[in-house]
Amino acid sequence: MPTDSWVNETLYPEWGQRFLVKRELARVQSAFQDIMLFESYSHGRVMLLDGVVQITEKDEFVYQEMLTHVPLLAHGDAKRVLIIGAGDGGVLRRVLQHRNVEKAVMVEIDGEVIRLCKEHMPDIAAGAWNDPRAEVIVGDGIEYVRKAEAGSFDVVIVDSTDPIGVGEVLFTDEFYSNAARLLSGRGLIVNQCGVPIMQAEELAETSLRRGKSFPDIWAYVAAVPTYVGGFMTLGWAAKDADLRKVDVETIRSRAKAAGILGSTEYWTPEIHAGAFNLPPYISRHLPQG
Amino acid sequence: MPTDSWVNETLYPEWGQRFLVKRELARVQSAFQDIMLFESYSHGRVMLLDGVVQITEKDEFVYQEMLTHVPLLAHGDAKRVLIIGAGDGGVLRRVLQHRNVEKAVMVEIDGEVIRLCKEHMPDIAAGAWNDPRAEVIVGDGIEYVRKAEAGSFDVVIVDSTDPIGVGEVLFTDEFYSNAARLLSGRGLIVNQCGVPIMQAEELAETSLRRGKSFPDIWAYVAAVPTYVGGFMTLGWAAKDADLRKVDVETIRSRAKAAGILGSTEYWTPEIHAGAFNLPPYISRHLPQG
Repeated sequence: MPTDSWVNETLYPEWGQRFLVKRELARVQSAFQDIMLFESYSHGRVMLLDGVVQITEKDEFVYQEMLTHVPLLAHGDAKRVLIIGAGDGGVLRRVLQHRNVEKAVMVEIDGEVIRLCKEHMPDIAAGAWNDPRAEVIVGDGIEYVRKAEAGSFDVVIVDSTDPIGVGEVLFTDEFYSNAARLLSGRGLIVNQCGVPIMQAEELAETSLRRGKSFPDIWAYVAAVPTYVGGFMTLGWAAKDADLRKVDVETIRSRAKAAGILGSTEYWTPEIHAGAFNLPPYISRHLPQG
Repeated sequence: MPTDSWVNETLYPEWGQRFLVKRELARVQSAFQDIMLFESYSHGRVMLLDGVVQITEKDEFVYQEMLTHVPLLAHGDAKRVLIIGAGDGGVLRRVLQHRNVEKAVMVEIDGEVIRLCKEHMPDIAAGAWNDPRAEVIVGDGIEYVRKAEAGSFDVVIVDSTDPIGVGEVLFTDEFYSNAARLLSGRGLIVNQCGVPIMQAEELAETSLRRGKSFPDIWAYVAAVPTYVGGFMTLGWAAKDADLRKVDVETIRSRAKAAGILGSTEYWTPEIHAGAFNLPPYISRHLPQG
């Protein structure tokens, strides 16, 4: 990859985004995937896994804030959080911004992703790696949830690649069944479910699977600039259906108590509540939509 | 452009989307711009003006619904609607879906856009061209608003290219001053203001200009899949600040009366109301944000 060449995202064979590359930072074939980091002209530093954009410095706040603050503040008393994937450390950082979080366990299968993000994108995780509340495990999330104690977490956040390749096992019946077991009484799990205008079947199929282990299945949306294709959906599976209906003022007061209010660039209490209102072209792919 | 070649959008010099082309439909240099229509593998038929994606068959509903239904239903009694641009006919079609609209005047400067869309994308406008309430003028929108009678319209919708090239004059002080004059007492104007993560100055500068002629300036968002970059903003300039605060149930009952409820794929009463809640990264570019 010479300087000033274009990198084309290969997620979809017939449409996608491309970046003009200022400088290549790393290209590593790990035991799990092809990892590419480069400096772009338009979006700061960018990481691709198997040709799919995972994070850019310019817009990472949208995805990280919505994947983290929505479940934690919907729960309202999340003390123990399990993060699967998210090797860049951005979700870990956002989780630990919540004052009331006592423990955040992060299980990332690919140590090379962590190593390369620490080296080339240190600002994404900021100091999170060294927070005494953080436990970072390089290992298999499937194994972790299989062995985790019942009721040992309040929220699970799955920041994985799409349900193809290395991420596929994070969308199985067994995974969701274990997630339901390890979650406490009002527990919930969120995971990224792709961009419905292009990948509607991803939302539909994984929602059906979540429905086998959780009574309340839904999704919420975020407009992530470099997950191109309009809204992406974040899958929602909860033991308590009230969690996605918490009113704006309650969310605001929880965010204030947690130390989140005013720290965000995308998330607000109003956007939190509104994100569960799905356009018909998305909701029709949910079991009860 | 041979079959199965890629077309790269050229809106931003260092980032953008690309489409694999199944078949070229037309490539015309009009008196105003370079018009390209092709059949894609991923998005149905696509039109670009000067290298910038204007419409695709797959996702046009997002932009058209939000650009049309939001101002008309926020007003609540819009009988006379002026559309500037929108040569594909999609906004005209959505405006005329509203039962209570008595007159829709559309002024498009480039007759070639209308001709080519009628030929290659007839489903976008459907029967709108022949609706007896429609008056389609091939002419200069600037001239039209200069001469239009005071108070002769309730809503103005500007579906233009970005404030560069042929669209630039639609964002001037003179244009907004004339728009304010031709609008009735509770009138409002909306126009597309680009994708703030990439073009924040477009929203900021044009909002300041709208503020010279209208007391209430704001914006609302839509996640349009092929206006890549997360939320796009639609600029809002109204004589009455209450119009953007109409509650969900009032919007729903207006939509029902207008014949809109249940006909949409993106717009819903909840999404309508929520679209005015802006992420901080967007609202900070508004004069009062």
